[in-house]
Amino acid sequence: MKTVLIKEDILSRNNERAKDVRDFLKKKNVCYVNLMSSPGAGKTTLLTKLIPALQKEFRIGVIEADIDSDKDALTIERATGVRTIQMHTGGACHITCQMSEEALEALGTDGLDAVFLENIGNLVCPAEFDTGADLNLVLLSVPEGDDKPLKYPLMFEVASAVAVTKLDVAPVFDFDREKAMNNIRKRNKNADVFFTCAATGEGVEELAEYLKNKIAKKIRVL
Amino acid sequence: MKTVLIKEDILSRNNERAKDVRDFLKKKNVCYVNLMSSPGAGKTTLLTKLIPALQKEFRIGVIEADIDSDKDALTIERATGVRTIQMHTGGACHITCQMSEEALEALGTDGLDAVFLENIGNLVCPAEFDTGADLNLVLLSVPEGDDKPLKYPLMFEVASAVAVTKLDVAPVFDFDREKAMNNIRKRNKNADVFFTCAATGEGVEELAEYLKNKIAKKIRVL
Repeated sequence: MKTVLIKEDILSRNNERAKDVRDFLKKKNVCYVNLMSSPGAGKTTLLTKLIPALQKEFRIGVIEADIDSDKDALTIERATGVRTIQMHTGGACHITCQMSEEALEALGTDGLDAVFLENIGNLVCPAEFDTGADLNLVLLSVPEGDDKPLKYPLMFEVASAVAVTKLDVAPVFDFDREKAMNNIRKRNKNADVFFTCAATGEGVEELAEYLKNKIAKKIRVL
Repeated sequence: MKTVLIKEDILSRNNERAKDVRDFLKKKNVCYVNLMSSPGAGKTTLLTKLIPALQKEFRIGVIEADIDSDKDALTIERATGVRTIQMHTGGACHITCQMSEEALEALGTDGLDAVFLENIGNLVCPAEFDTGADLNLVLLSVPEGDDKPLKYPLMFEVASAVAVTKLDVAPVFDFDREKAMNNIRKRNKNADVFFTCAATGEGVEELAEYLKNKIAKKIRVL
């Protein structure tokens, strides 16, 4: 019982802080996108494909969160040249809004139109913590299986959009697109769903268009 | 600071309870194996291949832990016929020792030689909570990438054994066996490492032999 109360307290303090982050980003005119998925679902690879499409119109920054290693930040930097920082969580399984705020400060939002946060690879905990992002982009990779929305409900409930990744290996893994779609819809009636493959480029343009609209909408409104 | 202290308190209470679970299982003469991995790394599928090999010599039980859905317990039951229960964590990202204890009670350990706990698919949090198991079998699936031990240190540090899974798709995913081995060794000098594929059967017999020895050792000692 005590643990639950502590958790609720932590979450409510986190949610309050998320409002502050949103206010700050509204003033700064920056769209903030939170990428979440299991480990190895392809967040970094998808970003290396999306950023070149977005860069034509917008100035992009990336925050790479990991428990350890700076491999992903180097990959993004080398592949795209955009402003990137690596954040280490010191063992933590998710990004709190405080971490998110500190990372945005460390990256610097001046001169940027959009910032992507690559959250810790974890299909559970990051979904509980509002990072102050404008939208949550959740990845579901084909090798994980089309049943994951059934087993990890909250992650798919908080998704603004879902990108199914690694679609080229669907036949090898007996991944059923329709089943995946039905399972996503059981958790979330409204999320935009994209079927993508970074290797072949399938669906990447559609997802980039979706993100362009979201970024433009955020920036234009202000 | 406060949060860290709470966490330490929770973990130390959990560790105390783990001793009780070990004492109980020692009396009951049951070997307890904790399977951990990312979502969709193949824990259930590997179990359906291992259990028939183990069943020839030992009486096996399975605890399936999920946030939601009872798909995995049904799969195990149908494929192997062994005593199985589905545990739902109500959103929790890991199995505490208390949950582990309650699940063992619900399953019933009488007449069993070994119990497998399939933990929540999560490469972070389950590693922090001792379940009272005799050994931690950690799975790393090829599609996740050979770099995961670098990014998720604790999981590989607490592993008694690591099973690399889905080895048949290694060429498709540019998965380097040697790199994976080096990265595992950076986190853990002693873990036994198995390269497996449930689809082709590669490495499954070796892993089954390893588990047979561990179960026999636990049972014979008592």
